[in-house]
Amino acid sequence: MIILLKSDADQKTVTDLKEWLSRRDISIESAYAFGSEVIKLEGDLDKIDFSLIKRFDCVASITKTRDSYKFASRHNYPDDTVIRIGDLTIGGGMFNVIAGPCSVESSEQIKEIAESVKASGASILRGGAFKPRTSPYAFQGLKSRGIEKLIEAKKLTGMPIVSEIVDISALPFFDHVDIIQVGARNMQNFELLKELGHTRKPILLKRGPANTIEEFLMSAEYILAGGNTNVILCERGVRTFENMTRNTLDIASVPLLKKLTHLPVFADPSHSSGRADIVPNLALACCAAGADGVMVEVHNDPVNAFSDGAQSITPSAFRDMMIKVKEICPILGKTVQC
Amino acid sequence: MIILLKSDADQKTVTDLKEWLSRRDISIESAYAFGSEVIKLEGDLDKIDFSLIKRFDCVASITKTRDSYKFASRHNYPDDTVIRIGDLTIGGGMFNVIAGPCSVESSEQIKEIAESVKASGASILRGGAFKPRTSPYAFQGLKSRGIEKLIEAKKLTGMPIVSEIVDISALPFFDHVDIIQVGARNMQNFELLKELGHTRKPILLKRGPANTIEEFLMSAEYILAGGNTNVILCERGVRTFENMTRNTLDIASVPLLKKLTHLPVFADPSHSSGRADIVPNLALACCAAGADGVMVEVHNDPVNAFSDGAQSITPSAFRDMMIKVKEICPILGKTVQC
Amino acid sequence: MIILLKSDADQKTVTDLKEWLSRRDISIESAYAFGSEVIKLEGDLDKIDFSLIKRFDCVASITKTRDSYKFASRHNYPDDTVIRIGDLTIGGGMFNVIAGPCSVESSEQIKEIAESVKASGASILRGGAFKPRTSPYAFQGLKSRGIEKLIEAKKLTGMPIVSEIVDISALPFFDHVDIIQVGARNMQNFELLKELGHTRKPILLKRGPANTIEEFLMSAEYILAGGNTNVILCERGVRTFENMTRNTLDIASVPLLKKLTHLPVFADPSHSSGRADIVPNLALACCAAGADGVMVEVHNDPVNAFSDGAQSITPSAFRDMMIKVKEICPILGKTVQC
Amino acid sequence: MIILLKSDADQKTVTDLKEWLSRRDISIESAYAFGSEVIKLEGDLDKIDFSLIKRFDCVASITKTRDSYKFASRHNYPDDTVIRIGDLTIGGGMFNVIAGPCSVESSEQIKEIAESVKASGASILRGGAFKPRTSPYAFQGLKSRGIEKLIEAKKLTGMPIVSEIVDISALPFFDHVDIIQVGARNMQNFELLKELGHTRKPILLKRGPANTIEEFLMSAEYILAGGNTNVILCERGVRTFENMTRNTLDIASVPLLKKLTHLPVFADPSHSSGRADIVPNLALACCAAGADGVMVEVHNDPVNAFSDGAQSITPSAFRDMMIKVKEICPILGKTVQC
Repeated sequence: MIILLKSDADQKTVTDLKEWLSRRDISIESAYAFGSEVIKLEGDLDKIDFSLIKRFDCVASITKTRDSYKFASRHNYPDDTVIRIGDLTIGGGMFNVIAGPCSVESSEQIKEIAESVKASGASILRGGAFKPRTSPYAFQGLKSRGIEKLIEAKKLTGMPIVSEIVDISALPFFDHVDIIQVGARNMQNFELLKELGHTRKPILLKRGPANTIEEFLMSAEYILAGGNTNVILCERGVRTFENMTRNTLDIASVPLLKKLTHLPVFADPSHSSGRADIVPNLALACCAAGADGVMVEVHNDPVNAFSDGAQSITPSAFRDMMIKVKEICPILGKTVQC
Repeated sequence: MIILLKSDADQKTVTDLKEWLSRRDISIESAYAFGSEVIKLEGDLDKIDFSLIKRFDCVASITKTRDSYKFASRHNYPDDTVIRIGDLTIGGGMFNVIAGPCSVESSEQIKEIAESVKASGASILRGGAFKPRTSPYAFQGLKSRGIEKLIEAKKLTGMPIVSEIVDISALPFFDHVDIIQVGARNMQNFELLKELGHTRKPILLKRGPANTIEEFLMSAEYILAGGNTNVILCERGVRTFENMTRNTLDIASVPLLKKLTHLPVFADPSHSSGRADIVPNLALACCAAGADGVMVEVHNDPVNAFSDGAQSITPSAFRDMMIKVKEICPILGKTVQC
Repeated sequence: MIILLKSDADQKTVTDLKEWLSRRDISIESAYAFGSEVIKLEGDLDKIDFSLIKRFDCVASITKTRDSYKFASRHNYPDDTVIRIGDLTIGGGMFNVIAGPCSVESSEQIKEIAESVKASGASILRGGAFKPRTSPYAFQGLKSRGIEKLIEAKKLTGMPIVSEIVDISALPFFDHVDIIQVGARNMQNFELLKELGHTRKPILLKRGPANTIEEFLMSAEYILAGGNTNVILCERGVRTFENMTRNTLDIASVPLLKKLTHLPVFADPSHSSGRADIVPNLALACCAAGADGVMVEVHNDPVNAFSDGAQSITPSAFRDMMIKVKEICPILGKTVQC
Repeated sequence: MIILLKSDADQKTVTDLKEWLSRRDISIESAYAFGSEVIKLEGDLDKIDFSLIKRFDCVASITKTRDSYKFASRHNYPDDTVIRIGDLTIGGGMFNVIAGPCSVESSEQIKEIAESVKASGASILRGGAFKPRTSPYAFQGLKSRGIEKLIEAKKLTGMPIVSEIVDISALPFFDHVDIIQVGARNMQNFELLKELGHTRKPILLKRGPANTIEEFLMSAEYILAGGNTNVILCERGVRTFENMTRNTLDIASVPLLKKLTHLPVFADPSHSSGRADIVPNLALACCAAGADGVMVEVHNDPVNAFSDGAQSITPSAFRDMMIKVKEICPILGKTVQC
């Protein structure tokens, strides 16, 4: 960390700054260039609130020389994180398609969809049991019974399963869930992230709709810092003024995240758009942008879905989409995991 | 709820829609206007996912005839909600200023600030103990010890206190906290909202930076639906492309919320801007826009604050600000509570 | 257009509304459903400001039964618009790659780049001559001399050329320019759009960074309404809080626009991201999302570019990208035009 | 301008950077601090595209030591710009209220409104004659005839007038218009700004809905650089996801602009919100935030307005608002100009 002072810095403020810095657990060194003082900081810089340094009038600029997300940083850890769940591999050149309904509704429903998406090439089954809903009056999920039905479908098909957690207290129900999803609204539920950092479960962390890529990586860092390195990032759209789609899929975040971090990067064309009619094209765009996987909502009877049916595609649309996914992935050097 | 069908609607889809509706716990009635069918729905409409109805091709439009936030709605409950905490009144023509540091740092610090802001006219003391921080490496608050120190300052000054909760498990520590704050990142932490709905504590609910006014009211509804009517709304800025400020204070939400709901409406010029130099002007703007109160960060030594010092104003700047607050409020028909 | 009145509408306001409507050049008819009046409007509805109708308290909802962009609407004109420039075809299943430097800098530069991008498979040459720049002190383009040099490159390579117009007065310089670009900042420069509507030149219209998809189509409508049907739409990113990229490419707008309009839909991965390192991945994503073409900035010496070098890719990166473009397009049923 | 190089910078890239810099018309000097090279640039830096410097891998940071908007900068010109139009003073402690209809519709309409707003305390009359409209089919203004009617109202009341220009070619019609407005959509119509920089007319420049405060100042700089120092800035809302209001008034930009520039700062509560019911509260908020004036749409018959009636307040609502404006302004040290 380098602080460049103004050439006309007031000496009193410089003294104040140095005193302030000296009270932190870091080392400070000074040099001079063109009459301006240059201060170098070393040590445990993560604990310092840099917005405070800018309050000192004498400061011209602050230059970070390291990523704040030290464990998530590709600069620090160049090799791709590869996550293994049984025979299945996430990251490391494999492309995985997570598919399934927004909500688990019944044993029949989840089993039927599971078999159908597996036949088309999905490698992981999704199904919501604990549902965060904008309205307190909307269907809130089958909760632990939903998880049980999802596990039945897992046994039937052999597919690993992913489901969303909405509160720490529900953690015991996720023992047989292969991947725990942290939804967009909980991306900065730090208490939940800390707790998940103490498990060794793969975590699918979704980006919040108002969060920057850097904040996304800092949330991953919460989990990594706890010792759990099995984190999968999932872009799912940011909130903008455009109202023909639910959110705006930030497709550029996919290749960017691949550069900034070694963690696997997925994208969710269903929640980002909220419109079944464009989900297949968006999924293909995610492949082409270099994602390690996509997560797609598929429902055997979308208009009767308990939640989010407007964005669910039918098993038949999913099958057509997968044919193209399998053609595009090799062009990007990826192997579709079946 | 009225559904208008297209004049050229396909009969098969209309039958599908009616069948779908008939499976819900609502009553359906049809009429015709200009060759288009008009369907009226009555009953427990809150449980229906209206985005699904739009999926039926035959639907031209859906007209809501009631607010989704039934308990928060001023249309349903025209009279202002007035919250009483000891001698103090929130809402109902009173203007309250919440002031204090971002984080409680020590008994001396919180007591000194408390006495100083009380002398200037603040009626409620704030102080963070459980801190949600973007970085896992940043100061996370003094936790329960912070709450204890805050209670000491309450005893000393007689001021009611407000502090943020970040997880349900911390609820027992808030027994002597007068107002529990739900931060912007937790506005859609529905499990937390449900739990707070079961208490009778006043809740200061902050708007999420990516959430609409309607979603804000739906989150308040979670608390109200649980039986807790003591909810204070607090606008604190939405996220935009402008980067000279941390967020963009949506000042228009203040008069709008006053029309849409009977709940007290506060605003937070400190977190919304992230810049101490414009906080006083923004606070005055909130008064003039018709807010029932503001929440302002004040620190006796901003550059040495443990968190968010960049947006904290000094006790002396706060005193100057309060002089003007006291002059503006009466123009808006408000009485400043001292 | 159907207006549904409230069931408890005040009769005086209903009379006011009808009087107001009667003064417009439209026909009005009434029907009744469930005690609510339903009003049907017919005639030249485009001239009516519907936000005004909402001001009448008696109105419950307004249902549009037609697209506001009548000439641009695919509902009204289902067949793809196909634009021919000499032997070249835009739209109708052809995929075109527009490539070239941000600014024309010299005859040598533009010719060298033209030959290089042509060899890799670009079909149209771009080059800015009149440059809109945020700073009045930045390089503003070679203006008419730039156009001349671009024409030289066209003669040399046989490639059609596209260049941006920034003011009506420059129109005479564009006689030998095949496609006139309207930049994002001018998407709502309606005087310019009207003027271009009177020409028969193909127009490449870029979406404004704060404009919705519907507004984008309304701007195209300005040109179409003037009689010029040769309009190409180009998505180039909307402005969001994310600051690692210049704008956020709204990839979902590509498949959405293909549904809403018959006009060819392009996308610009260079201006949307502002980062050369992710441009190739974004361009491939645009192919996969179903675009009819992309526009990519290529510079033989990016760091020495007069403008926007940060987002220009090298001819060699472009060649690698084109190899993949040619592989992806057939999967989407598109033929790359060479 | 100071460029800090990375401590592990590759020597070849450093040489490239220096060569690149040496080709610019600037002076370069080097120093060393902690093994990192520090480069100081001096000369005509405004012409350099700094995004290009960042492309050189060896660069750690760039520190600007001056505002890019050199004429608009308060740092460079500390004293408030004061604009005089006859007896009227804008800036310098005076608070001006611009009021009038969105569009001039008839002589009677504009005269009636002019007399009414003058009686309530407005000092400047607004009225649109050349109207930028999203739809090509909407009313586009009375054009030059509208300006004539506005001038009649000026003669009748003695109020200076302001009207919007949408294209350079219309400039001759503005000879007797006291203040020329550049609308939000034209904030980056640089050709128009350059032309207005060559006049000496006061210009009311509105902020674009997707433009940062810095870009706003750079657009003002276009006019100032041409020699016209009579620029008034007008905040009118940025575009966000919130859809209960047309735009989101960035109230924080008011006190911020007052710090960054010496130009007068106005705000427009009407266009920013698009809702008459909250305009008065927003106008008061602008006063309290420290604006030098507000611009408010007033119509004698809002529902019959030719354009934007939904946001126009009645003369009676305006009168009530002005009573409060006159009470708030002195608290902020401003004198309302009548």
